[in-house]
Amino acid sequence: MSSKKARKEPAKKPLFKRPSGRGYDELRPLIIKPDYMDFAEGSAYLEMGKTKVVATATIEEKVPQFLKGTGSGWITAEYSMLPRSTEKRTPRERTQGKISGRTQEIQRLIGRALRTTTDLNLIGERTIIIDCDIIQADGGTRTASVNAGCIALAMCFKKLLDEGLLPTFPLRHLVAAVSVGIVEGQRLLDLDYQEDSQAEVDMNVVQTDEGRLVEVQAAAEKLPFSKQELNQLLKLADKGLKEIMAAQRAILKKIHPVFIAY
Amino acid sequence: MSSKKARKEPAKKPLFKRPSGRGYDELRPLIIKPDYMDFAEGSAYLEMGKTKVVATATIEEKVPQFLKGTGSGWITAEYSMLPRSTEKRTPRERTQGKISGRTQEIQRLIGRALRTTTDLNLIGERTIIIDCDIIQADGGTRTASVNAGCIALAMCFKKLLDEGLLPTFPLRHLVAAVSVGIVEGQRLLDLDYQEDSQAEVDMNVVQTDEGRLVEVQAAAEKLPFSKQELNQLLKLADKGLKEIMAAQRAILKKIHPVFIAY
Amino acid sequence: MSSKKARKEPAKKPLFKRPSGRGYDELRPLIIKPDYMDFAEGSAYLEMGKTKVVATATIEEKVPQFLKGTGSGWITAEYSMLPRSTEKRTPRERTQGKISGRTQEIQRLIGRALRTTTDLNLIGERTIIIDCDIIQADGGTRTASVNAGCIALAMCFKKLLDEGLLPTFPLRHLVAAVSVGIVEGQRLLDLDYQEDSQAEVDMNVVQTDEGRLVEVQAAAEKLPFSKQELNQLLKLADKGLKEIMAAQRAILKKIHPVFIAY
Amino acid sequence: MSSKKARKEPAKKPLFKRPSGRGYDELRPLIIKPDYMDFAEGSAYLEMGKTKVVATATIEEKVPQFLKGTGSGWITAEYSMLPRSTEKRTPRERTQGKISGRTQEIQRLIGRALRTTTDLNLIGERTIIIDCDIIQADGGTRTASVNAGCIALAMCFKKLLDEGLLPTFPLRHLVAAVSVGIVEGQRLLDLDYQEDSQAEVDMNVVQTDEGRLVEVQAAAEKLPFSKQELNQLLKLADKGLKEIMAAQRAILKKIHPVFIAY
Amino acid sequence: MSSKKARKEPAKKPLFKRPSGRGYDELRPLIIKPDYMDFAEGSAYLEMGKTKVVATATIEEKVPQFLKGTGSGWITAEYSMLPRSTEKRTPRERTQGKISGRTQEIQRLIGRALRTTTDLNLIGERTIIIDCDIIQADGGTRTASVNAGCIALAMCFKKLLDEGLLPTFPLRHLVAAVSVGIVEGQRLLDLDYQEDSQAEVDMNVVQTDEGRLVEVQAAAEKLPFSKQELNQLLKLADKGLKEIMAAQRAILKKIHPVFIAY
Amino acid sequence: MSSKKARKEPAKKPLFKRPSGRGYDELRPLIIKPDYMDFAEGSAYLEMGKTKVVATATIEEKVPQFLKGTGSGWITAEYSMLPRSTEKRTPRERTQGKISGRTQEIQRLIGRALRTTTDLNLIGERTIIIDCDIIQADGGTRTASVNAGCIALAMCFKKLLDEGLLPTFPLRHLVAAVSVGIVEGQRLLDLDYQEDSQAEVDMNVVQTDEGRLVEVQAAAEKLPFSKQELNQLLKLADKGLKEIMAAQRAILKKIHPVFIAY
Repeated sequence: MSSKKARKEPAKKPLFKRPSGRGYDELRPLIIKPDYMDFAEGSAYLEMGKTKVVATATIEEKVPQFLKGTGSGWITAEYSMLPRSTEKRTPRERTQGKISGRTQEIQRLIGRALRTTTDLNLIGERTIIIDCDIIQADGGTRTASVNAGCIALAMCFKKLLDEGLLPTFPLRHLVAAVSVGIVEGQRLLDLDYQEDSQAEVDMNVVQTDEGRLVEVQAAAEKLPFSKQELNQLLKLADKGLKEIMAAQRAILKKIHPVFIAY
Repeated sequence: MSSKKARKEPAKKPLFKRPSGRGYDELRPLIIKPDYMDFAEGSAYLEMGKTKVVATATIEEKVPQFLKGTGSGWITAEYSMLPRSTEKRTPRERTQGKISGRTQEIQRLIGRALRTTTDLNLIGERTIIIDCDIIQADGGTRTASVNAGCIALAMCFKKLLDEGLLPTFPLRHLVAAVSVGIVEGQRLLDLDYQEDSQAEVDMNVVQTDEGRLVEVQAAAEKLPFSKQELNQLLKLADKGLKEIMAAQRAILKKIHPVFIAY
Repeated sequence: MSSKKARKEPAKKPLFKRPSGRGYDELRPLIIKPDYMDFAEGSAYLEMGKTKVVATATIEEKVPQFLKGTGSGWITAEYSMLPRSTEKRTPRERTQGKISGRTQEIQRLIGRALRTTTDLNLIGERTIIIDCDIIQADGGTRTASVNAGCIALAMCFKKLLDEGLLPTFPLRHLVAAVSVGIVEGQRLLDLDYQEDSQAEVDMNVVQTDEGRLVEVQAAAEKLPFSKQELNQLLKLADKGLKEIMAAQRAILKKIHPVFIAY
Repeated sequence: MSSKKARKEPAKKPLFKRPSGRGYDELRPLIIKPDYMDFAEGSAYLEMGKTKVVATATIEEKVPQFLKGTGSGWITAEYSMLPRSTEKRTPRERTQGKISGRTQEIQRLIGRALRTTTDLNLIGERTIIIDCDIIQADGGTRTASVNAGCIALAMCFKKLLDEGLLPTFPLRHLVAAVSVGIVEGQRLLDLDYQEDSQAEVDMNVVQTDEGRLVEVQAAAEKLPFSKQELNQLLKLADKGLKEIMAAQRAILKKIHPVFIAY
Repeated sequence: MSSKKARKEPAKKPLFKRPSGRGYDELRPLIIKPDYMDFAEGSAYLEMGKTKVVATATIEEKVPQFLKGTGSGWITAEYSMLPRSTEKRTPRERTQGKISGRTQEIQRLIGRALRTTTDLNLIGERTIIIDCDIIQADGGTRTASVNAGCIALAMCFKKLLDEGLLPTFPLRHLVAAVSVGIVEGQRLLDLDYQEDSQAEVDMNVVQTDEGRLVEVQAAAEKLPFSKQELNQLLKLADKGLKEIMAAQRAILKKIHPVFIAY
Repeated sequence: MSSKKARKEPAKKPLFKRPSGRGYDELRPLIIKPDYMDFAEGSAYLEMGKTKVVATATIEEKVPQFLKGTGSGWITAEYSMLPRSTEKRTPRERTQGKISGRTQEIQRLIGRALRTTTDLNLIGERTIIIDCDIIQADGGTRTASVNAGCIALAMCFKKLLDEGLLPTFPLRHLVAAVSVGIVEGQRLLDLDYQEDSQAEVDMNVVQTDEGRLVEVQAAAEKLPFSKQELNQLLKLADKGLKEIMAAQRAILKKIHPVFIAY
């Protein structure tokens, strides 16, 4: 009740109109092309609206120092944007000789999401590197990267399984991510760049196909938010995540019987 | 219901015993010394158990490019650990010529927390740099940094106010942070290093003195978690945060009447 | 005479068979998609066989120091490969904190090729940055970059012309590049990666639509070569370059009447 | 004779008055707290006036390449200042991606001082890293670091001895350092920042408890100086060094009988 | 015929007069001093006019990763200019923390030239590093480096041969390099800095003592050039290269009988 | 008296024999060539035995930030060694992306020596960069750099004076440097590399032509030393410095009447 008083958006005040004309709980058009690359062990091309990402999986027959001799594998991610993926050109990070905090934050998020939903002991002492390269960026590049990375990883596991190098399929769950936020008091699903840049609250949710949370990152960009608002946003994210995972599942099932379990 | 079945920790199975003997919802001993440094515009020394941090505030009479001419100010944070703050020596970042992703993530968190609770327009075109240097690290260094940083910032604003350089006090709220997590199925408040390194779920909560959220970062380190667990952890954090803010308030009130509002 | 004796390849010894089954003077399938990107001022996607590149043009309203006040513009190029563009993953250059000699050589080649065929005085004091990002690499990435870069640059000039920002069209010539080489004594046009890695002589030729040379880079990888061989390779390159420029011209003519001159 | 004419300071002209009111041959208040840190193998906190330093000793079970197989150990030092240790904030060296010449000079000085007074053969193939972190800087940070480093090193050796890892105590001598200088023609002991910045001659002296020299670094900041002046400054330093070593000795004797020899 | 029409320089239009008064096909005075350095395994000092270079050869008993176990050796080159080798001081590359594209291009050229003319299998698993340090730079520094590097390498092989470490002499050919170019329509041999900076076409030719090509790098600096012009420049370079190799041969023959073969 | 007992080297025990056969107080052969370079504003080539250095002076019409508007000038120095100046090749510092502590220490020493003996106010707001490049290194490279740098600086001032850009000559004194040390108990002047590497005490002395000290750096490499030994070494250095300054003076007087004053 009290929260309705505090923020009566759906009912009483004129709603924020999404520039794209989408409904507040509507995802952008989603396109996934598995096996997009000729040389990688797994790959996927994914579009969420104008946001476009190529994800590839590379297998390295070694693990970080702290895993040597444990029999366990590792998954790590790298993320980068083409310089002209953005409205205004973004200089290459190599030019500046350092990786930005934003890039590192995103890489860590992608890596954690994929590790938490994989049984690393089944991989053996291998590292899978997931490269997420943003061809075009219109908001939601980190969530698109998780979504594409999950497919690239699955394709890579399929290849290892086909070659008899895995005892069983190590992906415990499908995993997907989506952004939600509050713009002019209106909760929105899957923000594009313009919406994101004026959001009062910005939140990324990573979730499994069982509806359990892998990661929640919520930040007040302008004004602190209530626990009730947090829960409303989680619910909105849940709707979008179910749709994304349905698309992932549909793709994978066509490719290999092992994916029918997901 | 089903979630209760899945994880009936408080009721039925033997509880995880905290190495320090603390109760599951008990903070570590908290010590705050304001004005710890001779030269800084604001400063505080803060201990949460063995975790010890020095925070200083520096005023620079300039703002980042994107704020020039807007009349608004900025707050930014830097974070670093003494090499022997840790059990095993951590090499200095300058030696490696780059700032780690972890450091950058923490710096961004501290900066956002302090900016969101400050009226940046009242500062004028100035940047306040909050330096958080960890003398000793036993878990929770980022939350200790937010807690110390809030005091250093308040002391710095007091100094500007005393000098007639501010029209009114720009701190809208006290802000504090605490970690919570799940270890062996047991929810815990204010994890030390040993607890943190075995946590199944790890979460940092930044909150204002009105109980509204500034930032929530929750990550499944091993197994995904339910939305119910998220809310239970938020409640546990809320208890600790109220105690920390009471300590901050007590310190500040002794220093200057302006702080009585908080 | 004596050189014929030294290398009688076409006549007497069994010919090197190209792995792809191509004829010795046959280009790989060529695909060009102009306006591939939503945000760049000009762009093109280009495939030569499995080699795939995205080129974009960005306009910056400034010039390098040495051109300030001269009224002349500048064109510069950046080149990068996605890490998994290659058979074996290539680490990102940002990770190593330096740009390799190979990358710099290629960037300088692309820049010179486009500058030499443009009337820089017509651009005004602007810099056009041509970003060439290799999505997949199967040999000939630098020549594919010149070919795609020429289209991206033309699209960018068209945009400036449409907006009334140019007095006349500054592209003096179409420019294209191709590799030629000698493998097992056999001269070949447009080498793929496998051919390139066993070439005895490797040569890149950049040429205008009038058949004049912009750049020739010939290197004996294993054994020195004669001046006669140099001229035979130039002739073979000329055949391929005419075909590439025909494709470029066909694309451009469909887009804008200004391109009918080329 | 002639030098007395040239500079008759003590006798005839009005003396430079030290801002702190100290006598010309008076040290600043000296505080030493051994075992200041919980995790390091040895540590000390030391204040000389407003200059405050934390020194820690870390044992690594390896030596630099050139010592491998010799049975000898090594001691090395790192030095850093907290950004707000100074009146005006000093940017972190990691931000600039390089270590300044000043920092390197100081690190080398501390390392040499401690190595020369230790029997490295007794340590075995171990490296002791002495980290000197300046909490606050008011002149004399390098000499304070040597003084604190000596205690941290002694505490670390005591720990190794207690654990039976050393045959005998490897510290041959106590070692201490102090700055002396000439300000407005007046010789001064233990310069603070304000004095140091106007010194005509600046000198650091490192000495053992037998009164022998380990290092002398004398530099004319403005005007060259005579050999007589050099000797007068050495004598002044000697007075201060004896007092510092008395304080070091007093601390150590309380801790362990092995220190009674010093 | 047709070329005379296109560019009748020698006959009809006023010739470009070389600032030095040299004929169009005249080299600058060439001085070579072998064994210039006391410590290197091979060395040479070389002057071409005001361009002065010191080349040294260093033997390392290891090879790059890709050659390990093959029995083959490697030759690599480094190139650097003294800061005041140039009219205007050139900052040191170490200051900028990166090696320029120009430097890398030159290093690669020198290395390829020397590798192509050496039988690497005869060296055994050793790397020869050729350091070319430009004492003074007046154009043609990369070609002077190849010319000096060839002598330093030969001296180094002689030393290995004298010590019985080589089965036979591994240098297959003398190798030399020279620049040619077109300035104001006039073809010129061995351009100095002033000529080079106004050249319309710039070309470096690396050739063996049998007159075969090792590398050709031709670039239109302003206007594209014809294949006929390319061949005329090659012929002009050939004249200069024969003279340089005669000087190299004269030096080497005096030193050791093994050089009589060249 | 007591010190004679402690170390009776000259009298009673067999003397250390210098590998070169030099007397204990004998300099190495000294060669100075002024105006060695064609392009620099001042330059000198200097040999002390096998140690060879090229020093150049470059004038920049700007000063460091802290001198802007003061009317005063600045002198700074850079130091570098050719990779094969040494017995064993020393990798270039640019390769490692950082400048070593040793290099920085030397650069600072050279700069201080030349600044202290120059009237910086007479230079106007200019910076003179003294580049000292070591062609060959056999000990004493920092002192050779000071000695060569003094000549290069004098030549540069002469040029500015000749051009009417200086009111009067700004060099207050000649300045020279030399190393002294104790090897096997024997005091030695001007140590070469072999002597230096076994020295028990190592000392560099920078002095003016009036015999006053500019800088003294004395370090016990193995055993601490007495104040008496310090003074004996200073006396030995004084002998060598007088000879070096005589050679500098002789060179300069031949060049320009302004140098007769020195």
